[in-house]
Amino acid sequence: MKIAVLGTGNVGDTIGSKLIEIGHFVMMGSRTAENEKAKSFVAKQHDKASAGTFSDAAAFGEIIFNCTAGVGSLEALKMAGEKNLNGKIIVDIANPLDFSKGMPPSLAVCNTNSLGEEIQKAFPQAKVVKALNTMWCGLMVNPAMINGGDHSTFVSGNDTAAKEEVKKILKSFGWAEKDILDLGDITKARGTEMYLPLWLSIYGATNNGAFNIKIIS
Amino acid sequence: MKIAVLGTGNVGDTIGSKLIEIGHFVMMGSRTAENEKAKSFVAKQHDKASAGTFSDAAAFGEIIFNCTAGVGSLEALKMAGEKNLNGKIIVDIANPLDFSKGMPPSLAVCNTNSLGEEIQKAFPQAKVVKALNTMWCGLMVNPAMINGGDHSTFVSGNDTAAKEEVKKILKSFGWAEKDILDLGDITKARGTEMYLPLWLSIYGATNNGAFNIKIIS
Repeated sequence: MKIAVLGTGNVGDTIGSKLIEIGHFVMMGSRTAENEKAKSFVAKQHDKASAGTFSDAAAFGEIIFNCTAGVGSLEALKMAGEKNLNGKIIVDIANPLDFSKGMPPSLAVCNTNSLGEEIQKAFPQAKVVKALNTMWCGLMVNPAMINGGDHSTFVSGNDTAAKEEVKKILKSFGWAEKDILDLGDITKARGTEMYLPLWLSIYGATNNGAFNIKIIS
Repeated sequence: MKIAVLGTGNVGDTIGSKLIEIGHFVMMGSRTAENEKAKSFVAKQHDKASAGTFSDAAAFGEIIFNCTAGVGSLEALKMAGEKNLNGKIIVDIANPLDFSKGMPPSLAVCNTNSLGEEIQKAFPQAKVVKALNTMWCGLMVNPAMINGGDHSTFVSGNDTAAKEEVKKILKSFGWAEKDILDLGDITKARGTEMYLPLWLSIYGATNNGAFNIKIIS
């Protein structure tokens, strides 16, 4: 499949590399076509990787992974262009962490709204699926790194078929069906985004970012 | 030990009953001394239970459990009286869930503040420890109900000795030392309170409130 990865940070690099490893073609999108991190990504991934602007990447991709910093995601997606997003799945991995007021970051949007919802509202013809935003990117694509892969991940979004498509991708990353919980519509992104302060606190208390939560019942 | 339980709802009843079961004396506090739920609590718990106003209970207790509804906690604690709280540990179990705008509830305070912090600011001479607010009350006092008790709970607060005291109580409820994570100072209550929307989403998706999260690493 042809997939767009928007964002050239650790999350984009990790997701893009995994997608290529399992056979997809990835175009990494950034603000400019000359982004050094995107070039480096292409150089190490050989012939299945390419790079371009947000718009180039979104036009290329059948599915779009939003791996941009959350506070810049709406602008990045606007640069990607509504016509390049319409009808497509946007897998929204971003968290609206606002570092502008110091540490720890607060959330730029929360409580009665979420970044996932804002993206869905801005691009009503796209199918936004919030996923994977509750953990360090290394675990997103390699759940087996801890506890034999037995821990929990979430999806939410308004389009059931789109969520099924994203679940397939999660399974191809190593997630077991039983560990993927569909929380409901895109308003449920509030919960997974608002989990971030607890995530940051656990990280701070344990000095280990390679953790996740498992639902026990 | 003599313990005040402020609040007559399920949480107060459950916490108060457990405290009596393990040998403590409990006074349940409410707005009026004639609260029917408090009377019923006293009737079923025999001679170790008593009931009174918030002020009566706080004067009685060496430790105070805040089991009131979060949006009313500050008012309840003001009624309890600063002089009855000064120097004492307040175990804050409440979540600032605001149901006034319909379901799901939003948080009356969050992001750059928390109920735990508000209580600590309002009663600077008390030692507020946020604890147990991340799960259904049945699990708070009986972690062994699921997974042999092996799942996670959190404490946060500014006073280290107070947190140690609360950990002892958690252990007497059945929590293992390894499953009690000290997140840091009372600002970390933001994370455990902001986890509530995810908790509510998981509950909604699974139709089961008797769940908790376990940190996997």
